Amino acid sequence: MVDPIELNDALERLHAYLDGQDIAGAIDYLRTLHPADSAELLAELEPEQQGAIVERLHATELADVFEQLDEEDMAGVAQHLDVGMLADVLDEMEPDMAADLLGELEPDQAAEVLEQMEEPSDVAALMTYPPDTAGGIMTAAPSSLRRFWTVSESIRFLRKHYAEEEDFYTLYVLDRHARLIGLVDLKALILAEPEQTIEEIMDRSVISVRAAADQEEVAQLLQRYDLVSLPVVDEEERLIGIVMIDDVVDVIEEEATEDIYRLAQMSSDSEIYSPIPEAVRNRLPWLVVNLGTAFLASSVVAMFESTIASAAVLAAFMPIVAGQGGNAGTQTMTIMVRSLALKEIEPRDTLWALWHEARVGIINGISVGILVALIAGFWQHNPYLGLVIGLAMVGNLIVAAIAGVLMPMMLKALRIDPALASSIFVTTFTDICGFLLFLGLATYFLRFLI
Amino acid sequence: MVDPIELNDALERLHAYLDGQDIAGAIDYLRTLHPADSAELLAELEPEQQGAIVERLHATELADVFEQLDEEDMAGVAQHLDVGMLADVLDEMEPDMAADLLGELEPDQAAEVLEQMEEPSDVAALMTYPPDTAGGIMTAAPSSLRRFWTVSESIRFLRKHYAEEEDFYTLYVLDRHARLIGLVDLKALILAEPEQTIEEIMDRSVISVRAAADQEEVAQLLQRYDLVSLPVVDEEERLIGIVMIDDVVDVIEEEATEDIYRLAQMSSDSEIYSPIPEAVRNRLPWLVVNLGTAFLASSVVAMFESTIASAAVLAAFMPIVAGQGGNAGTQTMTIMVRSLALKEIEPRDTLWALWHEARVGIINGISVGILVALIAGFWQHNPYLGLVIGLAMVGNLIVAAIAGVLMPMMLKALRIDPALASSIFVTTFTDICGFLLFLGLATYFLRFLI
Repeated sequence: MVDPIELNDALERLHAYLDGQDIAGAIDYLRTLHPADSAELLAELEPEQQGAIVERLHATELADVFEQLDEEDMAGVAQHLDVGMLADVLDEMEPDMAADLLGELEPDQAAEVLEQMEEPSDVAALMTYPPDTAGGIMTAAPSSLRRFWTVSESIRFLRKHYAEEEDFYTLYVLDRHARLIGLVDLKALILAEPEQTIEEIMDRSVISVRAAADQEEVAQLLQRYDLVSLPVVDEEERLIGIVMIDDVVDVIEEEATEDIYRLAQMSSDSEIYSPIPEAVRNRLPWLVVNLGTAFLASSVVAMFESTIASAAVLAAFMPIVAGQGGNAGTQTMTIMVRSLALKEIEPRDTLWALWHEARVGIINGISVGILVALIAGFWQHNPYLGLVIGLAMVGNLIVAAIAGVLMPMMLKALRIDPALASSIFVTTFTDICGFLLFLGLATYFLRFLI
Repeated sequence: MVDPIELNDALERLHAYLDGQDIAGAIDYLRTLHPADSAELLAELEPEQQGAIVERLHATELADVFEQLDEEDMAGVAQHLDVGMLADVLDEMEPDMAADLLGELEPDQAAEVLEQMEEPSDVAALMTYPPDTAGGIMTAAPSSLRRFWTVSESIRFLRKHYAEEEDFYTLYVLDRHARLIGLVDLKALILAEPEQTIEEIMDRSVISVRAAADQEEVAQLLQRYDLVSLPVVDEEERLIGIVMIDDVVDVIEEEATEDIYRLAQMSSDSEIYSPIPEAVRNRLPWLVVNLGTAFLASSVVAMFESTIASAAVLAAFMPIVAGQGGNAGTQTMTIMVRSLALKEIEPRDTLWALWHEARVGIINGISVGILVALIAGFWQHNPYLGLVIGLAMVGNLIVAAIAGVLMPMMLKALRIDPALASSIFVTTFTDICGFLLFLGLATYFLRFLI
């Protein structure tokens, strides 16, 4: 039994070989590991060490490595190989991964490599689909069965044709126009009597998806129906590929990461290992937009300059009202954005959500309002200050609930990703309303505050 | 070919039957749908309608429904069934799902149901593992192969024993002590010659996990090695169950949701459909903690009351410095938290991350600082105000980068979920430092500001 290796230990061992200039030893060591692990170790090396190893690997070994690498690491490893070698490697790779690798190369280089490949057609076909669609993440389907074949004929056919194909768990049945009409699990094939026909054992309720469908829809179908693979069809219902569940696992993780980064107001492409200029590009524009909305909020404060001049203590409490509104608004907005992403809620549920969140906002507002009123009142020995800040807090938490529901719902209805801009709008709203409510009430009660 | 149904249309159709008191019609309609869809529709109904349907379904149909329901919906549907019926249904269910359902019942009721089951042993065994471990999410392993069997013997064995078992794609090979020694994919079994032995075709490099392993580790292993199922073993390496990839897809989504909610400062159990008291419990404590830190920040402002009293305009710009620091800190913290969760980075990378983020912070700080200095300077016709706010901004964005790296790393090193508390600490830090820097500098330059 293989234990999952400790990558740190393995990396140290690999470095020991490399520090001793023992490239052959390093390669022999990598060959003892699971391809997923050796690929990860290779990606961690410095370029020249990587190059020294990569140049000595066979095309089939390199194909294994590339199939396990993250897309970002592919281009780095590929730079050590010439066009001829890259073409050989791509011929050995699964078509969907080969298309991913080509997508990471410079367009000129990719064209040259494609030209030198022996069987470029599968890969070239895949490259015509946008990367975040069913067509973009699918791979070639295993050769298919016909309904009038017997089980023993089918197994003979599989022995002849399937040895070289990618792992698969479900076979698809096509009619004479190559249209998808059913599926047969490998389990069903093994359990069936040899003389039964495919038609007798096939499952006709096969769920499929069009090539243009968004990868999120693909992920949801595989999840909802507990599938291991999902067939992809063209407009005429002809089978053109399959999406495997392990590709979808990556999609789900990727989509969650995108939402998390957008909610934190930065580009969804952000990565911890981004070079500095890219990291700045991914974040600075959001800070600048926020600066604009911050000046909007600060111009509200400026309107009350004379109130603050006569009771400077207000400046200390002002950020509390705005900040709590921002926190409560972020809570509501985040739960809305995530529930929309998981399809637990839709824009038609807006009224229900408003009523639900408004009640939470009122209860939390009154609780926090009373607390803040007591603390502020006792601290500054002024019950009116407590009253003003308490009332403003209740009001702002209700505003927060409303903005937290409406912003994501509006963006969704406008077909904009709700994670993209909800944060900015919601906190702008709670900042402005928080300042207005607090300083407005303070101006009204000013003679009790000074 | 079955198109994935539009749930809204289906729900309307179902309601049409129910409004006409045609329960039999409603049930016939549900039977035409995929179990995943009929379960989802059933979960959407009002309790009495749900009860009317559930009472008339057979145990096998109910087992299908329960296997598709979310855990939250299980208890609601189960309440319509008596103990005897529940025991029959559980006997029909996959052991892991049956254990989940029992976990949703009241402890007394669960014990009663277990007692009335025909084969409670599999389920009872699964219930001994904590729900978020490999043991908690695994299901019973398919009966296993022995290495000296031939392929044709194995297929005969499968025909006899496997018809009733859950879907599976990989078979495991055990030695005479029930220890895991290899695996055979169904594909390999079909492609092999009938007289080959299992020993000849099995893959010895089988990756497994202990029952006590965290579900996140299970998810990472399945992802890293592109597996469809992962065997779970006890301390003696004996096979005790398998985790299927579709269960892991749910785990990945669940873990992402938990992180998203924790980053937004609410309980990871939050759900849009939580009843109001639960929603308040999930959010109010976080608001109260934030209130404490907000008063901390506001006491910093209060220290500068006399400065603000002489230049009330400062109150308008104060939240800009603190707010931008909060935004930049949230960006850094979020990318750290997500990268830690995806194991792209570890606490030993702290120094590297500090240097990386500090540089991003300096560049973003200078950019935003110059911008804010120009706007504030021209708006208030005072270059010194611009200088003060610009310098404070640069300083606070550097503070934000440092806090954004150190907080998650410290929590991780202390084995606390970095998503749990990073937000509060980082924004407290940027608020306090923002106010200190801005009002401190303003006090120093006060004679130029009034």
